[in-house]
Amino acid sequence: MTRVLTYGTFDLFHHGHVRLLERLAALGDELYVGCSTDAFNALKGKKTALPYRHRVEVLEACRHVTHVFPEECWEQKRDDVQRFDIDVFGMGSDWKGEFDFLGDLCKVVYLPRTRNVSTTEIKDMVYDLQHELRLVKG
Amino acid sequence: MTRVLTYGTFDLFHHGHVRLLERLAALGDELYVGCSTDAFNALKGKKTALPYRHRVEVLEACRHVTHVFPEECWEQKRDDVQRFDIDVFGMGSDWKGEFDFLGDLCKVVYLPRTRNVSTTEIKDMVYDLQHELRLVKG
Repeated sequence: MTRVLTYGTFDLFHHGHVRLLERLAALGDELYVGCSTDAFNALKGKKTALPYRHRVEVLEACRHVTHVFPEECWEQKRDDVQRFDIDVFGMGSDWKGEFDFLGDLCKVVYLPRTRNVSTTEIKDMVYDLQHELRLVKG
Repeated sequence: MTRVLTYGTFDLFHHGHVRLLERLAALGDELYVGCSTDAFNALKGKKTALPYRHRVEVLEACRHVTHVFPEECWEQKRDDVQRFDIDVFGMGSDWKGEFDFLGDLCKVVYLPRTRNVSTTEIKDMVYDLQHELRLVKG
């Protein structure tokens, strides 16, 4: 049984998330996902459209995901690798090098992200769409 | 084998979608989902944040969904019920009564929607969030 671990916020769940989760899941038999809590995001200066509990609901409904748990701080990763008996730690390549320090506990991989898609870009698209709508409505 | 059928746009996939799909799936063994194409949405005067192919990718990754196909016009429903050998046609209760005309082919049910969540509300939230960000950035 090969277990894969990743982390993320997963706000406004989109095809970029799906593709990354699918490729991570394909590296093993089970995929564990640490989802950033609202408190942890606040600490990072990040504000999401959807609260933690709703982001988790959507993640749990994804067929590539085995188990979702809260990511509450930067420091929990070594503990998580050990308590879930993780074989592969995987993140998008935007994090390249950042988690090499886990290399003594498990394999660490960075997968390429889908081009031209991020939650930020989707938020910008939605903004433009709603802005247009509001202009039309007056 | 009981087959359930539903339709929708599923833009900015959220926990309201997940809950509805989960409850629809629980009515049978397989859930078929007709996803509105961009051309059909244009006809309805509806513009989505995400194009058809990306909305489909997210739907297909949902563990409650068996098969996704394009919804291209209002008139295809009777054909779809027959070609997929559907037993239950289910929609959110915002459509109550609208599809009773399929009652001679299959069971027709309307399920309550999740309170306080819709793609429109999420778009408004994102708008406010981005608006705030742009004000901060100047």
